[in-house]
Formats: sequence, structure tokens, C-alpha cells
Amino acid sequence: MNRECNKKPVLIVGSIGLDDIETPFGIVKGVLGGAACYSSTAASIFTDVRMIGVVGEDFPTEHIEFFNNRDIDTRGVARIPGETFRWSGYYEYDMNQAHTRSTDLNVLENFNPIIPDVFKDTEYIFLANIHPELQLAVLDQLTAPKFIVADTMNFWLDSCRDKVIEVFKRVNAVTINDAEARQLCNTPSLVKAGRQILELGPEMVVIKKGEHGAVMMTADNYFVAPSFPLEEVKDPTGAGDTFAGGMLGYIARIDDINENNLRKAVIYGSVLASYTVEDFSLNRLAVLEPGEVICRFAEMRRMTFVNE
Amino acid sequence: MNRECNKKPVLIVGSIGLDDIETPFGIVKGVLGGAACYSSTAASIFTDVRMIGVVGEDFPTEHIEFFNNRDIDTRGVARIPGETFRWSGYYEYDMNQAHTRSTDLNVLENFNPIIPDVFKDTEYIFLANIHPELQLAVLDQLTAPKFIVADTMNFWLDSCRDKVIEVFKRVNAVTINDAEARQLCNTPSLVKAGRQILELGPEMVVIKKGEHGAVMMTADNYFVAPSFPLEEVKDPTGAGDTFAGGMLGYIARIDDINENNLRKAVIYGSVLASYTVEDFSLNRLAVLEPGEVICRFAEMRRMTFVNE
Repeated sequence: MNRECNKKPVLIVGSIGLDDIETPFGIVKGVLGGAACYSSTAASIFTDVRMIGVVGEDFPTEHIEFFNNRDIDTRGVARIPGETFRWSGYYEYDMNQAHTRSTDLNVLENFNPIIPDVFKDTEYIFLANIHPELQLAVLDQLTAPKFIVADTMNFWLDSCRDKVIEVFKRVNAVTINDAEARQLCNTPSLVKAGRQILELGPEMVVIKKGEHGAVMMTADNYFVAPSFPLEEVKDPTGAGDTFAGGMLGYIARIDDINENNLRKAVIYGSVLASYTVEDFSLNRLAVLEPGEVICRFAEMRRMTFVNE
Repeated sequence: MNRECNKKPVLIVGSIGLDDIETPFGIVKGVLGGAACYSSTAASIFTDVRMIGVVGEDFPTEHIEFFNNRDIDTRGVARIPGETFRWSGYYEYDMNQAHTRSTDLNVLENFNPIIPDVFKDTEYIFLANIHPELQLAVLDQLTAPKFIVADTMNFWLDSCRDKVIEVFKRVNAVTINDAEARQLCNTPSLVKAGRQILELGPEMVVIKKGEHGAVMMTADNYFVAPSFPLEEVKDPTGAGDTFAGGMLGYIARIDDINENNLRKAVIYGSVLASYTVEDFSLNRLAVLEPGEVICRFAEMRRMTFVNE
């Protein structure tokens, strides 16, 4: 069987934004950001992407062109009156935590995601970080979902925890960062938190630990992937979204869900995230070459390999 | 060649203490602790141990008997007038950091480590956490060192950084925790910190990251071992010392230093540390069975395994 034939597209819904970011390595203003942008760009390295989201009148056309040039279909991206979602934040010396200066939902506030008819039968779905009500609205429009991944963030755990849980109950996999998992499950133990999330319904949970890598848990398996060791991280923004988009993109590309392929997907996700943080915004992913991905994937495997 | 014949003893110098510890799971007072005790007990799972240290008149004889029953030779442990070293500390909810209430050096203050003549030709050495001057005094007495591992702690980095560096320059491997590596090298990047430590002289550095596992760096290799996932950690005290003692004990046992064996040693170290934290003091290590070690080692390998 020719695997190329099995390449399936992914549908991704999430925030599309313009970010102001400050890190010890510089300051950027109004750059392309948002969960859907990072995850779609990452997924597009493996397969075709159908992006669902909303932008305002101020959203630069060049970004839409950037997506379209990478086989990211933006017919599901609405442009409506008002300003684009904006996030402003900074990182301190150790870069481990994003500090939010301001979040302006703008057009995201009254967004009603409508999936174009031609996209409704997409099998591989990523519900990237966005209001859980919007994630649910997307779920309701799907006609043939095969593997749905959901992400969230502390903001929604604070403001509408129950809705987040409702989303988690309806998906196959959850990606969540370590602090959020601890917050959601009210335990310092990531193992306990992971188990609790699995009990909600998903077959798989991936806890993202930033520089400490990622852990994938299912009922029977526990897999640990390190993060790729970098001497310098310029901007961690979007690493988690890149991870999830890359992971799902790989799964959709091979369209064969089993433990080993999921493990490989987690490593590919980590590889792509390690590139995202090497520069601001999508700058590094935008110029990423296939050979680089293959090479770093091989290095990641070597990093944990132990012979008999 | 029969590997059993190659089993070499290890010599371990470090603090021997009585600890008062408080964690969310309980309070213990005056229990056996100290870097040499944890590391020697861990190493004794693989090979014979020669322990160098000092205790006061108050040190219970039953602890000495405990060591002797495990092939830990205590002829290098001096008993001198005064009180035994005491550490008192507590851990908060997340257990990630030890908070010191008090450190009473007592007999450690004027300790002059003397290695019995019959131990001087020991090839495998662990300089566990103790004043770096004492670590240097031990180094000066060795006649045939083959593989020396040194550990330290923030206390010495604050008070006698130069001496710690002098020790690191004279050993084959350094074990250090992540916060200490960042402090020593003045960088948030563990990769940079690891490289800096390698530049001092050791061929290998292992950065211990607690619940996030351990990283082993050499000039050409980078190896990541996760920590064993536990739902409950009762007392993290001694995990790092257990790790280092277990690692060196395994290396001495097989007496064949190569990259793959070092990787296995790191995993064995992690396995033993995962048992130490399951109970207070040396309670869990004291009853550990070989089958448990073998089983958890296999689980650790599975946790990172990815097929082609």
C-alpha cells in the first residue's frame, strides 16, 4: 500500500492573532501568532490543513498568502468588522513561563465558527486553544471525525472549567501543559492528573512540559519524549501549539493510529516545537526544510536509546 | 569472561547524618540520612561498598549494623566525640524543593577523612556531597582511581565555589542538580551549563532534574532518562544521592565503561531513586528486592522506546 495515498487532511480551529512579545532576546510587535497559526503551520509540514478561525479588518493579507502557499486552506477563516485578536506578553530570564500583559479578544468575542461544507467530513481534527464553547460548536458540525485532539489554556480553566471538561469528554486526545494539568486536576502529581483526564473519556493525554519534554499517557502505556536540547531559546511562544499541530499532522499523514505511530507523532511534535522557539513568531517554521526535521527526529531517538 | 569476576568495589565519601524531615505525608525525627548513607545503600545493591565518613557519639549502632549487613564496609567511618551531623528540612505540597530549617555540621566541622590503607587502591569512587576540601583530601589519598564521580550542593557553591571547581577538575564525572548547575554556570540553559562543566575537565556530567529525570552529557553524546512516574512521593530526600550511588555501583559492577553501559547506569540510578522517594529515610531501599529493580528498569526502557 502506498502511504502517500493515505495522507489525510487535518482541520484546525483556534485563535488567529497578532502578538506583542518581549523576551530577553528582543521585542516584536503585531507579529503573526495564535494557536491556530502555529498548529496549522506545523501540521502543514506533513499534510493539508483546513483552518477555521476569525480575523479582523486589520489582519494583513500577506499572512493569508503565507498560509495558502503552504497548502493551508483558509476558506474557513472569517474576516469580520473589528480588530484581530491580540495578545501581549513577556518572558523573564528563564523563559519557562509566559507572563500576559494583555489579552484583547476583539473579533474572537462574538465569533461563531462555521465549517465550510466541503470540510465537514474531515477525519483528523485539532481543537486548538480558543473558547471551549467554540470548540464545542466545531464538534457539532463534524460528520466523520476519526481522531480529535483538544487543547486549552489556564484562562479557560479559570473562567469556564466545566465547558473545558465537556470538550475533553468528546475527544480522542487531550494536549495540556503541566501547570494546566495540575490546575485542572488539583494535584501536584502529573501521573495522577493524566489518569484523571483519561477518566473523563479521551484515550490519550499528552502533558507538555516545555523544556522537560512531553509525556503521553494511555490506559496501558506511558511514553516520555525529551525536548530537543537547545543552547538558546529566543521565544517560547507557540511551542505547545506547534507540538500539537505537528503531532496531529503526522498522525493524519500516515493515517494509521497505533502506539508506535503515536509515539513517533509525539517526537515529531517535539522536533517542530524545538524549531519554533529558535526565533520569534513563525519565522523559523516558515523556512524549515524537510531534511532538518528528519535529522532532528533521528537525534531525538538517539537521545533516549539504550541497547541491551 | 565471567562478569561476576569483574565486580569491583566502590569507595564513597560523604555526609552521614540524622535528619528531621517534614513532608505532606508525615514527620520523622532523627532518622538515618546524609549523602554517603543514601549513595552507599544504593551502590550496595550492585557491589561492595567502602564508606568514608564521620559520626558522633550519639550515632545509633544499629545503623552501622544495617550497613555491615549489606556489605558496606564501615572501617572508614570514624566515630569521634561530639554530635552527628544533623539536617532539618521540609517540603511543600509540590515536593520539588527541599527547604532547610537548620544544618548542624557538628562532627563534620573538624573531620579529616582518612582512608584505610586497604581501601586506597579502590578504582571506583564517589565523592558525595560534603565540604569540597574533604573531597580533595580523599582524592589525595587514592592510588589507583579509574572512575571518580563528584557531587556537591548549593551550600558549597555559595560558600566555596572555587574549591568545588577544583574538585570537578580532578574527576571523571560530575552529578549535579539542575538548579545547582544553573547557579554554578550562571545560565538558565542546562545545555550551556552542562557544556561549561565539561570544559572544566570531567568527561561526563549528569544533571539531575528530579521528577523530570536526568540528562547525561559527554563531548559527543546527550542522553535523557525520564524519572519513573510515581503517583505518590512521600519524601524526596536522598533521591539525588541514591541516583549517583546506584549509577556508580552499576558501573563498578560491570567494570566496563562505555556509552551504552553509562546510559544503563543512569537508568539504574533513576530506578533506585524512584524507590527511595516512596518512603522516608532508607526505609524503602532497605527492603528493595532485585526483582523490583529489574522490573522497573525494563519499564523505564519501554517508556522511551520507539520502533522504526
